[in-house]
Amino acid sequence: MTPTEARARDAADPLRPYRDAFHLPDGVIYLDGNSLGPLPRATPAALADIAERQWGDRLIRSWNEGWIEAPRRVGAKIAKLIGAAEDEVIVADSTSVNLFKLLVAALRHAAPRTTILSETGNFPTDLHIAEGAAGCVPGARLKAVARETLADALGPETAVQMLTHVHYKTSECFDMSGWSARAHQAGALTLWDLSHSVGAIPIDLTGAGADMAVGCGYKYLNGGPGAPAFLFVSRRLQNTLASPLSGWMGHAAPFGFADAYAPAPGMTRWLAGTPPMLGLAALEAGLDVWHGIDQQQVAQKSAALFDVLADIGGKLGLACVSPADPARRGSHISFRHPDAYALCQALIARGVIGDFRDPDILRFGLTPLYLGFEDVVRAGEILGDILSSGAYRDPAFQQRNAVT
Amino acid sequence: MTPTEARARDAADPLRPYRDAFHLPDGVIYLDGNSLGPLPRATPAALADIAERQWGDRLIRSWNEGWIEAPRRVGAKIAKLIGAAEDEVIVADSTSVNLFKLLVAALRHAAPRTTILSETGNFPTDLHIAEGAAGCVPGARLKAVARETLADALGPETAVQMLTHVHYKTSECFDMSGWSARAHQAGALTLWDLSHSVGAIPIDLTGAGADMAVGCGYKYLNGGPGAPAFLFVSRRLQNTLASPLSGWMGHAAPFGFADAYAPAPGMTRWLAGTPPMLGLAALEAGLDVWHGIDQQQVAQKSAALFDVLADIGGKLGLACVSPADPARRGSHISFRHPDAYALCQALIARGVIGDFRDPDILRFGLTPLYLGFEDVVRAGEILGDILSSGAYRDPAFQQRNAVT
Repeated sequence: MTPTEARARDAADPLRPYRDAFHLPDGVIYLDGNSLGPLPRATPAALADIAERQWGDRLIRSWNEGWIEAPRRVGAKIAKLIGAAEDEVIVADSTSVNLFKLLVAALRHAAPRTTILSETGNFPTDLHIAEGAAGCVPGARLKAVARETLADALGPETAVQMLTHVHYKTSECFDMSGWSARAHQAGALTLWDLSHSVGAIPIDLTGAGADMAVGCGYKYLNGGPGAPAFLFVSRRLQNTLASPLSGWMGHAAPFGFADAYAPAPGMTRWLAGTPPMLGLAALEAGLDVWHGIDQQQVAQKSAALFDVLADIGGKLGLACVSPADPARRGSHISFRHPDAYALCQALIARGVIGDFRDPDILRFGLTPLYLGFEDVVRAGEILGDILSSGAYRDPAFQQRNAVT
Repeated sequence: MTPTEARARDAADPLRPYRDAFHLPDGVIYLDGNSLGPLPRATPAALADIAERQWGDRLIRSWNEGWIEAPRRVGAKIAKLIGAAEDEVIVADSTSVNLFKLLVAALRHAAPRTTILSETGNFPTDLHIAEGAAGCVPGARLKAVARETLADALGPETAVQMLTHVHYKTSECFDMSGWSARAHQAGALTLWDLSHSVGAIPIDLTGAGADMAVGCGYKYLNGGPGAPAFLFVSRRLQNTLASPLSGWMGHAAPFGFADAYAPAPGMTRWLAGTPPMLGLAALEAGLDVWHGIDQQQVAQKSAALFDVLADIGGKLGLACVSPADPARRGSHISFRHPDAYALCQALIARGVIGDFRDPDILRFGLTPLYLGFEDVVRAGEILGDILSSGAYRDPAFQQRNAVT
């Protein structure tokens, strides 16, 4: 695609107006919205309002003026993006903490089944937390196997099948309906981590018959660094599963101040401590950008951006590790290269921000709300320059940062 | 104390300049900083900076420009307020989640000891979470007894003595040194909840020989609604205790993306998910107000404010349930009254914001950084008006809010 063709595609893009909803700094092509979504233009005012008016002026009274409902209200906005009912989603804690809560609850519910089944190479926190959750239920364990042997590993001991919908490195996507049905046939519950798929691709938890899910607020939902996460529990399980993190905000009567714990009905029981209101306000501003957006249009544009960058990568001799079939992937593209780290740093020095994933993955997020075809073509040109000039071999680009 | 005397006390108050560090809305006397501290004047700019510059302009690069260290950096600022070393405190999650992590770790460490010992009527989330934590360790249980029988209940089965330093209702304060020594003599670990004491009274965890502690960021630390919480682990236990919430940010090499979990050294292992940066920024702004403040001056002024309000309450015939001895209490005062809820609502309608705690407690926070003697005297006058006029008997003041 030539720059002229790219500009024509951008001019005809029905999602183009959404670009104005984001602050995109000059001189930067941002291909890392799958790691940290950019700042929505509405967010600073939302933060100023919650800080100066709601906290500063209204003080403690704000708990009765919208704060106490916020985890459910913001959860209902996420529900629309993942094919869930409004009362099946709540915002709380981090993805890691939510995974822990659901895994312990699922293991207890599924006893005498003992096993969390997942795949090796899953996003690390999922496996780490599964280890921790299994350690909290006598006899339980994590069984992580390669994707090719997952189906065979499902069995009478499987309590819960925990899969990440879109893989953080390769962008590979599980068929949620197929894998949910397979787990249910084996008598297991399903837990989906939507961190790399929510806001990236259309999701239908209800249609897939999913039991539980978690997801991240700071990637495609643009909720800000370390935004609160969410969890989903199907209505049919809501009053059966209970959180091991039995904090006061998940109590049936948190202001009754009783010594004994009694879980709230519905999703409220998944709250533990006091809701993080500043983070919730920013997440809500990020979600409001999504109002009225056609997710099929997002998916179509994602596929088209992918094809442009895959074509450029192919011509540059890069090995693409992401599936060619748009139905089998998320909204990022990854290339394998032995100098992926240095390439990533050299790109950042030229204003093209993607990221590196150990040991050899160069990853680019293709986020249709604010990224255009010209951005991707221009990023490809710069990548070509860096490869052909060998600029990435500069020792300065080898120095590892704390966060890669 | 007359209004004239109160103004003279305020004029001579060495802490008076700190009042200007807070936004205190016109027409409000805020006696609820023990529940939600007011907005520091520096906080909106700190939030604008993290949102617009750090997130908006620097995007993902900010993780290498101060974000990844934030939980330790902000923890070190809290350490100064609680008599801990800088590397003994980290900011993470909520108080409830942090209690869970430490209790499960302590129960495992202390095996074959089985029991979390605490007091009935402790802040509910402490007891609720202790139930949840005990449920994650085979054979463990929570034993909650009345304060008078705590010492007798310490025994060879006690794994951890979990006490809240200052009681949320009565303001009663445990002698931390005495109770830590008593627990250690019985072979138990100590876990202190500092939520109602950090920033309220001088604390010396090191001097008291405390093992573990947690605390809240949104009360006397003025970190904002639902601010991130903190935890303390004595250096001597840091590499012995491990978190059951084994998330990636507590991993020894989070960006190595290994399948197996290995806890980070020091306090970092207590992190689970991605740090909530907006909340951390606000908490840090709140903590920076404390820089250079003499905590003994804070304690002296707290005691003086207490005496003024206790005197007024006594003259109005209210039963004070907080200890008269300043060494035996925190920085709030509570009165018992059968119409405490309606009284609280009637006070709020007149601009005096305290709070109600079920079933009959009227509670006022005495926060020396921004509260003056004239504020307290004026609040007492309004309370007297409401009592003598019977204005609180208006049925409108009986209607219960979701959050009381």
